[in-house]
Amino acid sequence: MEFLRLACREEIYKTYFHLFKPLGSKQVSVFEAYKHFASKDVYATENIPYFPRSSVDGFAVKASNTVGATPSSPVLLRFVGEVSMAERPKLTISTGETCRIWTGGWIPDGADSVVMLEDANIVGEFVEIYSPCATGENVLQIGDDVRQGGLVISKGKEIRAQEIGMLNALGIQEIEVARKPRVLIIPTGNELVEPWQVPENGKIREINSFIVTFLIKNYCEVAERHPVVRDDQKVLFEVIKSVFAAYDLLLLSGGSSKGAGDFAVRAIEEFEDSEVLFHGVRVSPGKPTFFAKIKEKPIIGLPGHPGSCFVSNYLFVLPLVKYLQGALEFVPSPSGFIKAGTDIPSKAGREEWVRVIKVNSNITPLFSESAILSSLVNASGLIRIPENKEGIHKGEEVEFYEL
Amino acid sequence: MEFLRLACREEIYKTYFHLFKPLGSKQVSVFEAYKHFASKDVYATENIPYFPRSSVDGFAVKASNTVGATPSSPVLLRFVGEVSMAERPKLTISTGETCRIWTGGWIPDGADSVVMLEDANIVGEFVEIYSPCATGENVLQIGDDVRQGGLVISKGKEIRAQEIGMLNALGIQEIEVARKPRVLIIPTGNELVEPWQVPENGKIREINSFIVTFLIKNYCEVAERHPVVRDDQKVLFEVIKSVFAAYDLLLLSGGSSKGAGDFAVRAIEEFEDSEVLFHGVRVSPGKPTFFAKIKEKPIIGLPGHPGSCFVSNYLFVLPLVKYLQGALEFVPSPSGFIKAGTDIPSKAGREEWVRVIKVNSNITPLFSESAILSSLVNASGLIRIPENKEGIHKGEEVEFYEL
Repeated sequence: MEFLRLACREEIYKTYFHLFKPLGSKQVSVFEAYKHFASKDVYATENIPYFPRSSVDGFAVKASNTVGATPSSPVLLRFVGEVSMAERPKLTISTGETCRIWTGGWIPDGADSVVMLEDANIVGEFVEIYSPCATGENVLQIGDDVRQGGLVISKGKEIRAQEIGMLNALGIQEIEVARKPRVLIIPTGNELVEPWQVPENGKIREINSFIVTFLIKNYCEVAERHPVVRDDQKVLFEVIKSVFAAYDLLLLSGGSSKGAGDFAVRAIEEFEDSEVLFHGVRVSPGKPTFFAKIKEKPIIGLPGHPGSCFVSNYLFVLPLVKYLQGALEFVPSPSGFIKAGTDIPSKAGREEWVRVIKVNSNITPLFSESAILSSLVNASGLIRIPENKEGIHKGEEVEFYEL
Repeated sequence: MEFLRLACREEIYKTYFHLFKPLGSKQVSVFEAYKHFASKDVYATENIPYFPRSSVDGFAVKASNTVGATPSSPVLLRFVGEVSMAERPKLTISTGETCRIWTGGWIPDGADSVVMLEDANIVGEFVEIYSPCATGENVLQIGDDVRQGGLVISKGKEIRAQEIGMLNALGIQEIEVARKPRVLIIPTGNELVEPWQVPENGKIREINSFIVTFLIKNYCEVAERHPVVRDDQKVLFEVIKSVFAAYDLLLLSGGSSKGAGDFAVRAIEEFEDSEVLFHGVRVSPGKPTFFAKIKEKPIIGLPGHPGSCFVSNYLFVLPLVKYLQGALEFVPSPSGFIKAGTDIPSKAGREEWVRVIKVNSNITPLFSESAILSSLVNASGLIRIPENKEGIHKGEEVEFYEL
């Protein structure tokens, strides 16, 4: 089978991803929510802080009482005591008075700002203030950080450590998140043996399925691997049939190269209600990638070369895994821009993803065919050369995607 | 206690980290090695490929037989059969002959290169070759990817998905990796309640310990949290004493602010064979960070403000966790460079780490105090403003560290 019209990357995100329904959601404890995506907007149930709070160690004052204070001519305020941490102050600050307060302490009634410790000094019953402060200075007002009722986590946002902190801070103990997909990868190829076997006569060890499962497992409920399946349409059909119900996404690895792999596509087409959406992408490496569906369930065919499989996983599998969870950001975005340390050739007419080493402020390409594994191990990231460019000049800035 | 001389970041990596001994190593299966660091150089036990291998679908030829071939005047070669995948070819290519071969196939004796499928056509007993090829073209020679005996994974390298793939490809089933540390974080503060409790009278929920454990857990054997300990030197001393033997690294959170937190330092100093290495760093936020040791075991005191605690964890805790495993790269390195979308002020004399949002090719700072939690949730990364700079101008490129 010849490659039909090649799909381009943006089209895959914009058109083909939308053919698949997001997975459902589930309620989990905040501590289990890590690396999930919120499936509902989360609003603040409280104000943070819920009381006016000092953000420094110092002396609570009326700002108007500190006007004109200097080290040589300090303002004198009567010292009326201390607000302990974790207490609602019993004292009140009247004109001409001050009290000691710690970071995080509750600003007493009457005070509106805090003079920092280093700008004041206790002298007997008085405190010398050496510097004026503005109203509200060093005070966090009620709701300054988070306002009750405000949006704190948007639907589709990834729950990182910070988001868990925020939910904890608000006393929220459960959150609704998208269910993570159950993913199975099925490696195919007569030439493949398992990694714990010794290959002979031109056979090689199967590795793509392991690389892929480790790359996606944080975002999957399970990312499992099927033993190697030989290049046989009937056998593959039976394998897909037997595992179909148990997974949300099936990946085929190695059966999509131009010459040998069409049996995978034909095995899929044998299913009722199946469709091959595209076979081939205008991206290098990764060109032989295909997308298909059987009864609304996505199937991605990955190229057999390790470099192509890796890039295809990065550009299509991981994004789809996130998309199925309703992720706001599922398209790979550059980690930054870096200067090319050398000229990097590429062909116009296809987007190229080049394995590179980042050294200090430069990247150096790892020139290598997609069959090469060692350059994947040496790579610290990928750069993208747009379809309309013929190579990158030394010193030019390129999009860098950290691995 | 006043801050003594403030330590600078590079000094901490270069001088203080070296006071701590790397953890031991252990033998694990390749599949358990994920996110560990190799504790020995790994050398290739085999050549990859171990046979001369076609990297395309096409026709195996002697390159010298294809000289001058063009579409209008093709070279005619006798078609002598096909090399199946996963077989050692029985046929030999003599002058004037060719055979079909697939990607990954074993180049037969006599052939030295492969003409791509699209540059040839079978016509009866002959194959028309439309384009000349160079000797070795489209052939991966023995050891071209990985040479037997060559270094494939350096000591101190992190085992990512790709490294697992490489080990699998070589048939290596076990690898020696550094033991991951057992880490305990002890939150301290009279004002703190647990996140599942309702705070009153100026108390707040403790969250830093959860943020930190989620940030480091991938690199730890365990990253656990102790319940909140009140600000009491004797109590903290007893807690440290009771947990000391079970962990490789202790973190204290919240007890290191200028005014209130010295009891933590004093509790440590009560131990025999203890030393506070520095108290305070020339970094903002994160200034109140301290390092100490008790009998060679590291203890890091983290600031109480969520923003400071986060940055201090990023700059010091996670790097130390990696350093203890012998990581080659433990110092945070920028994910790339990004243009400032606006002026960003900073004070000279300290390195500033500013929370930022990355939008397309620009970053926007989230102006906020270190006490503010919402800016951590909104941040897509940090930028570094060097100690000797007073702010960043709009349009200037800055180091971006993705979160």
